[in-house]
Amino acid sequence: MSAWVLPDHIADVLPSEARHIEELRRTLLDTARGYGYELVMPPLLEHLESLLTGTGEALDLQTFKLVDQLSGRMMGLRADTTPQVARIDAHLLNRQGVTRLCYCGPVLHTRPDRPHATREPLQFGAEIYGHAGLEADLEALLLALDSLKAARVDKVTVDMADARIVRALFAGVPADAAHLARVHAALASKDATELASLTKDFPSAAREGLGALINLYGDAKVLAEAAKVLPASKPVATALEQLQWLAAHVEGAAVSFDLADLRGYAYYSGIRYGIYTPGASDALVRGGRYDEVGAVFGRNRPAVGFSLDLKELVGVVAKPPLTAAIRAPWLDDANAAELRAAVASLRREGETVVCVLPGHESEVDEFHCDRELVREAGRWVVRAL
Amino acid sequence: MSAWVLPDHIADVLPSEARHIEELRRTLLDTARGYGYELVMPPLLEHLESLLTGTGEALDLQTFKLVDQLSGRMMGLRADTTPQVARIDAHLLNRQGVTRLCYCGPVLHTRPDRPHATREPLQFGAEIYGHAGLEADLEALLLALDSLKAARVDKVTVDMADARIVRALFAGVPADAAHLARVHAALASKDATELASLTKDFPSAAREGLGALINLYGDAKVLAEAAKVLPASKPVATALEQLQWLAAHVEGAAVSFDLADLRGYAYYSGIRYGIYTPGASDALVRGGRYDEVGAVFGRNRPAVGFSLDLKELVGVVAKPPLTAAIRAPWLDDANAAELRAAVASLRREGETVVCVLPGHESEVDEFHCDRELVREAGRWVVRAL
Repeated sequence: MSAWVLPDHIADVLPSEARHIEELRRTLLDTARGYGYELVMPPLLEHLESLLTGTGEALDLQTFKLVDQLSGRMMGLRADTTPQVARIDAHLLNRQGVTRLCYCGPVLHTRPDRPHATREPLQFGAEIYGHAGLEADLEALLLALDSLKAARVDKVTVDMADARIVRALFAGVPADAAHLARVHAALASKDATELASLTKDFPSAAREGLGALINLYGDAKVLAEAAKVLPASKPVATALEQLQWLAAHVEGAAVSFDLADLRGYAYYSGIRYGIYTPGASDALVRGGRYDEVGAVFGRNRPAVGFSLDLKELVGVVAKPPLTAAIRAPWLDDANAAELRAAVASLRREGETVVCVLPGHESEVDEFHCDRELVREAGRWVVRAL
Repeated sequence: MSAWVLPDHIADVLPSEARHIEELRRTLLDTARGYGYELVMPPLLEHLESLLTGTGEALDLQTFKLVDQLSGRMMGLRADTTPQVARIDAHLLNRQGVTRLCYCGPVLHTRPDRPHATREPLQFGAEIYGHAGLEADLEALLLALDSLKAARVDKVTVDMADARIVRALFAGVPADAAHLARVHAALASKDATELASLTKDFPSAAREGLGALINLYGDAKVLAEAAKVLPASKPVATALEQLQWLAAHVEGAAVSFDLADLRGYAYYSGIRYGIYTPGASDALVRGGRYDEVGAVFGRNRPAVGFSLDLKELVGVVAKPPLTAAIRAPWLDDANAAELRAAVASLRREGETVVCVLPGHESEVDEFHCDRELVREAGRWVVRAL
């Protein structure tokens, strides 16, 4: 095999896309900064137990493992940044009040999430620690929507669910993990026949509740319907009420519900959502409340947040035009110092000035030069090409 | 061991340093862009043979290895970005003319380079492919110096050497690799006694040349001295002439020479340099010419470039002051829409506006708020705190 072949689901990002990703990166970080989110940069490598504690099997299978030569212990490459941010909030910052943190960096997956997914997403995310109220859920969601708007993603839909609803329906149901996983799969694929068969020995409230759940997707009417058809319980009532409050406060986006959506079920502790846009094969953004995430680090603080993959995002937004550059000659004579000063001055103004190396004068410019720097009447001036 | 303990030589970057690194990152990428360098983002993971071919043993020992579940083949985490950029130039871009590329991303090392070094440097670099002339060496070096200037590093010294000199002295010397490695070590530590003992059976020209080399460090006078004391040969004469030319064209930095400096000896093919500044324990920047780097990818193009570690750089430059933020109340009443509009407008102007979540009004602001948004006479106005 040739040395230039890359592993499957691993790719280079070439100049025009890389430039766009870099611009989006800055846009997203600046948007988060405008909201008061502080940037952190956790390492790519950590002891395996720090990365995996509390986050369940899914992350374990997704995590590349390595032996640390220095200690002989197992390390992992992060497959998700949130456990690291929770560790930073819990241990390093150790603040009493509200902490807002954001991050942007690569994560690595042993296997692609979806058929065409990369194994090296560039994850951007923002999180609030220390506030249990719905206002934190709302602020994080509004920041997610503002981030997409700043990245020029129009037409977005927030699809909401709540981990507490399914959890309440399962409460007291006697079934092993493997059986529950099949029930989850049936719910996810909305397979009513399979679900009925799998839940036939469940208590009637759970059986009927799960059977009803499968149809609870669509617009705001779903919440009223859910209140009628789901078995009455405090957690379900609270979840429905909070979903209604949050949906009512969303601006600039359509809201839908899919109460049987179980993605991240083990991870989220309250409202969770995906944000969709036409052109993206899956949710662009995933977020919600995950209050348990910091527990293993000794501080069980309330937590909400969201994340997205910049490599996905760049695929659904229009590419901004490349700013054209200026071509300059290469001199090594009496006029060289004056030329260098003219070039430096243009660069300070934000222009790209490409100095043509000797012997390459006739080459096509890769940087799209539409002007050139020429000497006229004893001065260096910029002239259109 | 606690879940929050990190592996040795691995660290989190916390908010105030992370913000500074992000600012430096933008400064460096914008400086390279001003010169016409196109950004690329090669992956962190590649097949091992792509990462290691042509780059020698040092990189092999520094590279973390993994098995790819999808293919069963060995992959490596990049320990250096240059082999990847050479691959991109050779295979993906495949241009005939000059290609200028830059990058900024993490690399991982199995062991720290130096006693206090991180195992996860954040590498920034810029490279020119396709120009064999000294002008490319100069442009890359001037960009390196301009990058440090833009990052506000004052007082830098460029310490130059040339891989061709040592190579010429070793030409035709009958010695095995282990013995040569000891000679290299003696040169690096300027141990004249050890060197004399190791080279006593070498041909006299090599023995005397290597013996002289050990003292060839210092200012520009070193080049004239070298011409006198080193055995005359075409490669040595060319190297000395080119060092003189390059040094004469450097602006805004002191230049020194250390002709026995062998770092990256196997890698560089011509002039190479380190850029030093007071406060940094080692060279901040390393660069030079490495014409062979793309050979394994099927295109042996001339190549020059440099790289630096942003985590090192951030340690030697003064931290810029944090822009103070504005505190805003949290409302959910009739005035909420107007408040939201005022907040959004301030954020569009580049301000950071932290909305105080209910119940946290009395907390110390982590973001240093020096102003607050208050309602006066029916309007939202910013007032000093």
